[in-house]
Amino acid sequence: MSPAGSGEGWHNAHMEVIADLYSVFPEKFGIPRQSGQAPEARAEVVLRPPFARPEAVRGLEDCSHIWLLFLCHQAEGWRPTVRPPRLGGNTRVGVFASRSPFRPNAIGLSAVRLDSIEQHKGVRLNVSGVDIVDGTPILDIKPYLPWADAIPSARGGMAAEAPPRLAIRFSDAAQAQLARREDGQHLSRLIEQVLSLDPRPAYHANPEREYINSLAGVSVRWRVDGDAVTVIAIS
Amino acid sequence: MSPAGSGEGWHNAHMEVIADLYSVFPEKFGIPRQSGQAPEARAEVVLRPPFARPEAVRGLEDCSHIWLLFLCHQAEGWRPTVRPPRLGGNTRVGVFASRSPFRPNAIGLSAVRLDSIEQHKGVRLNVSGVDIVDGTPILDIKPYLPWADAIPSARGGMAAEAPPRLAIRFSDAAQAQLARREDGQHLSRLIEQVLSLDPRPAYHANPEREYINSLAGVSVRWRVDGDAVTVIAIS
Repeated sequence: MSPAGSGEGWHNAHMEVIADLYSVFPEKFGIPRQSGQAPEARAEVVLRPPFARPEAVRGLEDCSHIWLLFLCHQAEGWRPTVRPPRLGGNTRVGVFASRSPFRPNAIGLSAVRLDSIEQHKGVRLNVSGVDIVDGTPILDIKPYLPWADAIPSARGGMAAEAPPRLAIRFSDAAQAQLARREDGQHLSRLIEQVLSLDPRPAYHANPEREYINSLAGVSVRWRVDGDAVTVIAIS
Repeated sequence: MSPAGSGEGWHNAHMEVIADLYSVFPEKFGIPRQSGQAPEARAEVVLRPPFARPEAVRGLEDCSHIWLLFLCHQAEGWRPTVRPPRLGGNTRVGVFASRSPFRPNAIGLSAVRLDSIEQHKGVRLNVSGVDIVDGTPILDIKPYLPWADAIPSARGGMAAEAPPRLAIRFSDAAQAQLARREDGQHLSRLIEQVLSLDPRPAYHANPEREYINSLAGVSVRWRVDGDAVTVIAIS
C-alpha cells in the first residue's frame, strides 16, 4: 500500500452527460428519498448522441435492474455536515455518511428496475422505482450485479431500516377523480407509495396544513390526519 | 414526463478528487472484477483537504459497508461495445451492459466493507473487499443502505452469478515462505481469494505458462494445473 499510486496527480475530472431522465416527479417536493420506495414511479432514460446507439446497450435487456449515476443538478454547494430529513432535520451527520445531494461531487446513485428498452429512433430505457427529478442529466448506466451489489446483511447506519409508512385514505372526491382517468389505478398506487412516505418538511407546526404535490401530470392535494394521509383532491 | 426538464442545458460537469485509495493491488493484473470477491483485499481511503475533516464522516462508523465512486484513471477512451473477460473475451456486449472501466464517464462503483475510521491527522477509512488498483482517485463516499441498495432477487444479465472458483494449492516452497511472514495467514487467504478467480487473460494457449502477480507487497508466482492453481513461490 505505497502512497505512490499513479492517481495522485489527478485533481479533477470532466464528465459528459450521456442521457436525460424524464420522470413522474416535476419537482423535488415529495420525491422518495431512495430508489425502490415507489415502485410505480416511472421514468424514461433517453440516451444522447453519440451514446444513443443500440449496440451500447446490447445485453442490458437481460438485466432486471440497473444503476443510474446522475448529476444532482439542482443541488449547489456542500457542507461537511447535513441534517437528514430522516433524522427529523435536527441531527447533523457527515456529508459522506449521508446520501444528500449537497455533496462535493453531486453524483446521485439509484438502483432502478429496467422495464423495457426502445430502440426506434435512438435508445430509450423505461425504468421504474425512481427517486429522481424530471430532467435530470445522467452520467452513467451500469448493470446491477446481485452477487456483488446486494449485501442484505449490511448495517445501514443512521438510516438502518426502510422509512416508516403512513396509511392513505382517498376522499370521495379524489376517488371519483381517479375513477375517471385511464391511468387511475397506476396513479392511485403511485400516490399511495409517494405520500405514505410522509413528504412533509421536517418542521410542520400546523397539523391542518394542506400540501400540493405535482406528480405524473396531476396535482395532488393532501393533508395528514394523525398517522394517516388524506388525499383531498386530484386535478 | 414532459421533456422540458431543466437539466437539458447541462452538457458536462466538473468533478474534484476528494480522496486517494491505497490498496493491496499495485497493478491491474489479478484484481477481482467486482468488489467483495476477495474479502481480505484491504485498502485505505485517505481524504484530501478540504474534505479531510472528521465531521464530514460523522455517523459513518455505524455503517458496515460504503459505496466508493472512483475514477478509473488508467482507462482511456471507450467504445460502444466491450468484450468482457467473464464471457471468454469473444462476446461483445454494450458498454452500458458491462462494468468495464472503458466507458464514456470512467466512474467505478464498488461496495466495500468499512473496517475502521482513523482521525488523527486527517481522515482515513480502512476498507476491505476492494477491486480497485492502488493510487485510485476517489470521487465520492456514500453509506450503503441495504433497504434501498440490496436487491438480491435482481437478474444480473450476462454475469448473472458470481464467477466460478479454481482450487488452490501452495507448493512446499510457498508454504515455507508464508510461514516465515507475520502476515502469512492474511496473505495466504488473500492469494487464495484472488487467484481462485483465475486472473489469466482470456487467451491462454500455453497451459504451462507461469504468471507473476504483485500483491500486498509480494510477488506471487503461479500456474494453472487442470482446474487448480498452484502457487509456486512467494517473494
